[in-house]
Amino acid sequence: MNTSPVKPSLETIASLCKRRGFIFQSSEIYGGINGFWDYGPLGAQLKRNIRDSWWRNIVQSRENVVGLDASIIMHPRVWEASGHVGGFADPMVDCRACKKRYRADQLCEEQSKQLIKTATGFQLPDGIVCTACKSKDLTEPRAFNLMFKTFVGPVEDGSSVAYLRPETAQGIFVQFDNVLSVSRQKVPFGIAQIGKAFRNEINPRNYTFRSREFEQMELEFFVKPGTDAEWHTYWVDQRMKWYQSIGLPAESLKPYVYPKEELAHYASACVDILYDFPFGMQELEGIAARGDFDLRRHQEFSGKSMEYFDQETNEKYIPHVVEPSAGVDRIALALICNAYHEEWIPNGKTGGDVLPAEPGKPVPEGYEARTVMRFHPSIAPIKAAIFPLLKNKPELVQKARGIYQSLNRWWPCFWDHTGAIGRRYRRQDEIGTPYGITVDFQTLEDDTVTLRDRDTMQQERVPVSKLIERLHDALLPPLEETSTNG
Amino acid sequence: MNTSPVKPSLETIASLCKRRGFIFQSSEIYGGINGFWDYGPLGAQLKRNIRDSWWRNIVQSRENVVGLDASIIMHPRVWEASGHVGGFADPMVDCRACKKRYRADQLCEEQSKQLIKTATGFQLPDGIVCTACKSKDLTEPRAFNLMFKTFVGPVEDGSSVAYLRPETAQGIFVQFDNVLSVSRQKVPFGIAQIGKAFRNEINPRNYTFRSREFEQMELEFFVKPGTDAEWHTYWVDQRMKWYQSIGLPAESLKPYVYPKEELAHYASACVDILYDFPFGMQELEGIAARGDFDLRRHQEFSGKSMEYFDQETNEKYIPHVVEPSAGVDRIALALICNAYHEEWIPNGKTGGDVLPAEPGKPVPEGYEARTVMRFHPSIAPIKAAIFPLLKNKPELVQKARGIYQSLNRWWPCFWDHTGAIGRRYRRQDEIGTPYGITVDFQTLEDDTVTLRDRDTMQQERVPVSKLIERLHDALLPPLEETSTNG
Repeated sequence: MNTSPVKPSLETIASLCKRRGFIFQSSEIYGGINGFWDYGPLGAQLKRNIRDSWWRNIVQSRENVVGLDASIIMHPRVWEASGHVGGFADPMVDCRACKKRYRADQLCEEQSKQLIKTATGFQLPDGIVCTACKSKDLTEPRAFNLMFKTFVGPVEDGSSVAYLRPETAQGIFVQFDNVLSVSRQKVPFGIAQIGKAFRNEINPRNYTFRSREFEQMELEFFVKPGTDAEWHTYWVDQRMKWYQSIGLPAESLKPYVYPKEELAHYASACVDILYDFPFGMQELEGIAARGDFDLRRHQEFSGKSMEYFDQETNEKYIPHVVEPSAGVDRIALALICNAYHEEWIPNGKTGGDVLPAEPGKPVPEGYEARTVMRFHPSIAPIKAAIFPLLKNKPELVQKARGIYQSLNRWWPCFWDHTGAIGRRYRRQDEIGTPYGITVDFQTLEDDTVTLRDRDTMQQERVPVSKLIERLHDALLPPLEETSTNG
Repeated sequence: MNTSPVKPSLETIASLCKRRGFIFQSSEIYGGINGFWDYGPLGAQLKRNIRDSWWRNIVQSRENVVGLDASIIMHPRVWEASGHVGGFADPMVDCRACKKRYRADQLCEEQSKQLIKTATGFQLPDGIVCTACKSKDLTEPRAFNLMFKTFVGPVEDGSSVAYLRPETAQGIFVQFDNVLSVSRQKVPFGIAQIGKAFRNEINPRNYTFRSREFEQMELEFFVKPGTDAEWHTYWVDQRMKWYQSIGLPAESLKPYVYPKEELAHYASACVDILYDFPFGMQELEGIAARGDFDLRRHQEFSGKSMEYFDQETNEKYIPHVVEPSAGVDRIALALICNAYHEEWIPNGKTGGDVLPAEPGKPVPEGYEARTVMRFHPSIAPIKAAIFPLLKNKPELVQKARGIYQSLNRWWPCFWDHTGAIGRRYRRQDEIGTPYGITVDFQTLEDDTVTLRDRDTMQQERVPVSKLIERLHDALLPPLEETSTNG
């Protein structure tokens, strides 16, 4: 089924995203703002589907996980306790000649060298030059805190400083005790949250991949000390399965296991799930076993106990935590990259196999080109398009309208009655609509429609009365019961 | 059905919200942060249901409305064009004696007077005193801009200032042309968005009602000039119906029609939909006919045309806009207030009618008290609770588990096998779960369960095979086809 052996470039992806309304530059009419992106009609729906699929898998299907929706601006002490005020910084260097600014580690990496870590900070290795003007006159690397700062209340001074959260996780930790006391949960259990987070990146890059405003889906799963390793393994496995369930093939994903020396001092394990983006294997999600670091710090800074009383064993302890932390925008970009296929298909009468398009070469005789987004049906923005064969036949239009309405009760559907049927299919292929339903004259006789599959382009006749059932089976996969507190 | 003639106080509401996990104070372990709130497990689910219902009604069911998901931080010129940099300010006064700070209009209102508007700003009427210390030594009112400010990029100066959006609407206006060109829409059509917005309120108050971080659901509906009035009427009607469809009774809602002199200079009509909160009739949503003000200003400031070419009439114009703008947090609070009921119910054998609880009086003999949240089933956080009658009978537990799993595939359900059945019902009543399903010994014989209705407390026996259908009918109301572009 993979008819695109040539991976699309990021430019090709961005061009389709803009043309069909997946992603726009934020504030484009004002020249844009670096590191911020808007999602158009299809992108907004795609993100909704990603969130819903995650929430269904992580919260709804699990009795031992509950949801939370915390504020973006929190008490500034939260970020002192978490270590973000003191330590959440990137090393920054400036070119004294052309005034361009870089993240020191990225600048070194681009020149195949490595930033040197010293006792007090960082140092550039010899030979690093400014990418823009090639000058060697660069400043020493210095720390730049990535949290966006603001002021709460009418006075702008140190007492009113607050931060936009750089991660959603801390909202969960500070509410640990409240959630525990209302939810009747017992360790092991989890608290999950979806929401925006902000990082003042020095160099946003790779399209929406590294942006300054982004959306996270984080789970903090609290476990008994000593069981960290087994739960960490469990969650890496669960998360790998989820990515495959939304359509990312196993061969496009790679777990990166952190070696001991790369782990944070409090962490016992960390695995990143990488996806094969056009710009290389990059992180979709990190799954870290963070011990009791976060809860212990908040206990220390707030003076409130974060201890859990285990009724079965009569033990008291601060739970350890396993944290699967995923990025909605990165997942959306991975799904878009993975879905994108260009192919040559036989045009009408001639027959023949579908061929992968070869960039730069002319379309062979008897073929035409199509772009098709092979989204998994469960995350495709539009689930089905309904076409009356002819728009000037009221009985066809009326029949199709009824089908559109009954399906649209369940899923986002698209109504299109203009142009040749082939062109209508092609428009839907390009946005990844998995099913095309055509109402023709036979429909009026036997109450069947043609159901056309986006990927195989095969058509079959299906009774109208079976449509909802057919789509339900394709669009709502069974929920496994993943765990209980029984 | 209204068994609570006594309206609950805001304290009663807040207490239940904290106890059962609807709403917590943000950063509570650090003493909280004024004007910011977190939603616990049930509150997060309630908000999801509100968003989903709105999206279904506004976007999915309408062919002429599409979605958008724009960034919170936008180019600062957006807020110059919109008028927020210059004019989005509240008048603020300080007490020179005790240093307390007030919003001038609120301070006057509390003392049954009215703030005086002058040519250059505002002036306090005679006799206004500090609420806290009763001093008359108050500063003159001065403008305080409500936008939260931050800095994008590593330099903190005027060139890097940006704002947290004080409304989601402008994200829609600046993408008007992009959305128009990708969506094949024709005027009249709409663009809808759900997202966080921020206002640095001088005095956040009334629990979650006036907070500094909140979530909006906004629709910008673009119409042909001259048709503003009819579309405005249409949308007021649509929105009133939606509030009723999610369970707010008509008598708790009131449209407030702005008199001409209260309208912004560019607006031709505005109606607020008010709800009867414990602290008075207050705004849930504003529906304004804003003319072409916003698009025209962005055309002026960006130099990009916002004109629409009408293919049917060959006219070119800047569309006018009708804007229904609702607050998720306010709707959640209204739904919670409306749902809250305390009543006295006959305890077991004695029979008798359900009585409204009378505050301060003892529960009459033969009765017990219950708190019940009468959420509309479509927005209730948990849809059904499944109870095996006895937890130590494996055949009951196993049968109930199967039912739980099949229902939980569709809706958030709750599993509870501990305690007397009456107590399990009561726990669900207090969080508003509309259906209780009990698996008992008869279930093992004839495959029926008892389905208990939260409001009437009536029980009926329903075949297990009919449960999903029964719940679907109650939980997924038919979508009306509200408009087409046909």
